[in-house]
Amino acid sequence: MAPPRQIFIAVIGAGGVGKCFLSQLSALAARQSQNPASPTYFSLIYLSTSKKLLCSSSFHPLSLSNWESDLAASTTAPFSPTEVANFLSAKSGSVILVDNTSNQDIADTYPLFLKKGISVVTPNKKAFSSDLSLWKAIYSAAANGTGAQGAGYVFHESSVGAGLPVISTLKELVETGDHVRRIEGVFSGTMSFLFNSFMPVGGGGGSFSAEVKKAKDLGYTEPDPRDDLNGLDVARKLTILARLAGLEVVSPTSFPVQSLIPKELEGCLSGDEFLQRLGEFDGEMDKLKKETAAEGKVVRFVGSIDITKNEVNVGMEKFDTSHPIATLKGSDNIISFYTERYGSNPLIIQGAGAGGEVTAMGATGDFIKVLRLLH
Amino acid sequence: MAPPRQIFIAVIGAGGVGKCFLSQLSALAARQSQNPASPTYFSLIYLSTSKKLLCSSSFHPLSLSNWESDLAASTTAPFSPTEVANFLSAKSGSVILVDNTSNQDIADTYPLFLKKGISVVTPNKKAFSSDLSLWKAIYSAAANGTGAQGAGYVFHESSVGAGLPVISTLKELVETGDHVRRIEGVFSGTMSFLFNSFMPVGGGGGSFSAEVKKAKDLGYTEPDPRDDLNGLDVARKLTILARLAGLEVVSPTSFPVQSLIPKELEGCLSGDEFLQRLGEFDGEMDKLKKETAAEGKVVRFVGSIDITKNEVNVGMEKFDTSHPIATLKGSDNIISFYTERYGSNPLIIQGAGAGGEVTAMGATGDFIKVLRLLH
Repeated sequence: MAPPRQIFIAVIGAGGVGKCFLSQLSALAARQSQNPASPTYFSLIYLSTSKKLLCSSSFHPLSLSNWESDLAASTTAPFSPTEVANFLSAKSGSVILVDNTSNQDIADTYPLFLKKGISVVTPNKKAFSSDLSLWKAIYSAAANGTGAQGAGYVFHESSVGAGLPVISTLKELVETGDHVRRIEGVFSGTMSFLFNSFMPVGGGGGSFSAEVKKAKDLGYTEPDPRDDLNGLDVARKLTILARLAGLEVVSPTSFPVQSLIPKELEGCLSGDEFLQRLGEFDGEMDKLKKETAAEGKVVRFVGSIDITKNEVNVGMEKFDTSHPIATLKGSDNIISFYTERYGSNPLIIQGAGAGGEVTAMGATGDFIKVLRLLH
Repeated sequence: MAPPRQIFIAVIGAGGVGKCFLSQLSALAARQSQNPASPTYFSLIYLSTSKKLLCSSSFHPLSLSNWESDLAASTTAPFSPTEVANFLSAKSGSVILVDNTSNQDIADTYPLFLKKGISVVTPNKKAFSSDLSLWKAIYSAAANGTGAQGAGYVFHESSVGAGLPVISTLKELVETGDHVRRIEGVFSGTMSFLFNSFMPVGGGGGSFSAEVKKAKDLGYTEPDPRDDLNGLDVARKLTILARLAGLEVVSPTSFPVQSLIPKELEGCLSGDEFLQRLGEFDGEMDKLKKETAAEGKVVRFVGSIDITKNEVNVGMEKFDTSHPIATLKGSDNIISFYTERYGSNPLIIQGAGAGGEVTAMGATGDFIKVLRLLH
């Protein structure tokens, strides 16, 4: 039997998601070391945050158990993305880069990594939802796109719905020849929680501004809740899915996105000022709530892609109280694929679409897929 | 650039699912031939039904467009499973066998195929839900089990929930280190349709025997509806998922399975006789329906696996009318994974779990996965 093949791994970002990923990677290494049939061993050789760097020769891989203290003790600044590419491509073995940041500069370097034979696994939405030219550069460089043999693979399951199998499912529908007609769903844990609380099926719920404050206090929003309410996070996810379904979406601002930031508050200098003044606009949302309730429906913040009509939309919509989107719980995501094969009842995937562990799980799953492909 | 690698494919079974699979395969070949970046070309070299055989040298592959008339004109009887293994393993290239039957003899030969380096893709539940020894023989022979390098891969997404990403999702939860605690759902399109009609949320529905007859007339049941009502189909699917989750389930009859065939009708000699007499037992089901309605619930036929308690169960259960299992539509399946990472709100997958096209899609998706791994 051939000796197990050596695979090197580089990790950028050790924040919420990065920490969970490194912990899952450490557990995976422990399980693999106990399994004599395990096909592949991997060694961590590069780990960086925005401030610090650990980097090692292939003969002395970094520790997956002590990385936190090792990193704290480091006095070295991280490499630039191009320096990372050069460092990793000099290795005589396969390399997988896991980018746990949401950094645009690193995303812009993916085509270079891939061309140099470095595989990329990431929850970073920026790479796949910014200008169409970057999307094309990434997929034309990747071995699982139209890249040359020997190029790296790219996987980004967690860029939509965290660990939920959304991207892999859509890719399989397309690759097996099904015709995806429409994709619809709740793509933001924050928006899910907010609207499930603001207008629960069966009545109740506080004013919109009170629910936004509650969501922020419970940690369901970004530090500045405007980063959720502007709809851009959902627009980025829709951009990714629409492109995978074959639409040439130019950018996440090239289709209608409804912002929940009132025009009058666009000039607020801080999230706190915005939150203080948001209550002035509760009347409008209350009116919508009452109107919708009178129709026997509820309001939800959704995204939809109509592949046939080449249309993408993000914003509030009304749903019958028995609709799966209406009965969603907590901060869950739900994604419905309407396709030729599935007919009138869509293929539905539902569950937590945010959080460190489930986001990292998507990356760990992708990492295992690349290990198998490189094997 | 290296020339594309040749991969051979053998297909057994050309009935409902087999026909759809061959049509999807033909479309896949057409798309690949138009894509210069397509990594792999494949040639059909063996195709058999229970009566006939088409088989070809690697230089003159079988036609994916004329196979139906070619097969009709064939006067050759199919090989035995062992003969198929010998024929295919003599090829100098990688071979993927797609088994679209539900034949136990072919399933019993999977370990031999895998050891000989032949990959197996199949919706055939028998291989994975019969005696535990067969399951172990298959997974200890497969390259994606604990088999040797050079062994074949085995994939069987369609053996549970047809094309829904049920098995791939469960495997990923386990492989990335999540702890699956409970799996629960509606695993039979027939049972789904039957109970959604018998006791819809909001009231209504006919007698149980009338609904069984309706389901049969609409083509939702097996030719003999007792093959659905005995619960064995669901028990087989639960056996597969429980084993993937790590439970050593001995066989699909080694745990409690509720049969909906009244004891008094177990001696019926035909499905027709059974259907004629089923109405005699409507009183019992009506009583259950009324009791359950009085509790504000509905009855559904479900399967559940409690991994923590090492328990598998199949039978009728009561659900609140707002529960996703209660509000299921048509003949849809729903599968909920309760795991450590997903917490109290499960990861849910829902949609059509039966039908030729979606079952074949699971096999086509698996076939593409093996193509990539063999690349």
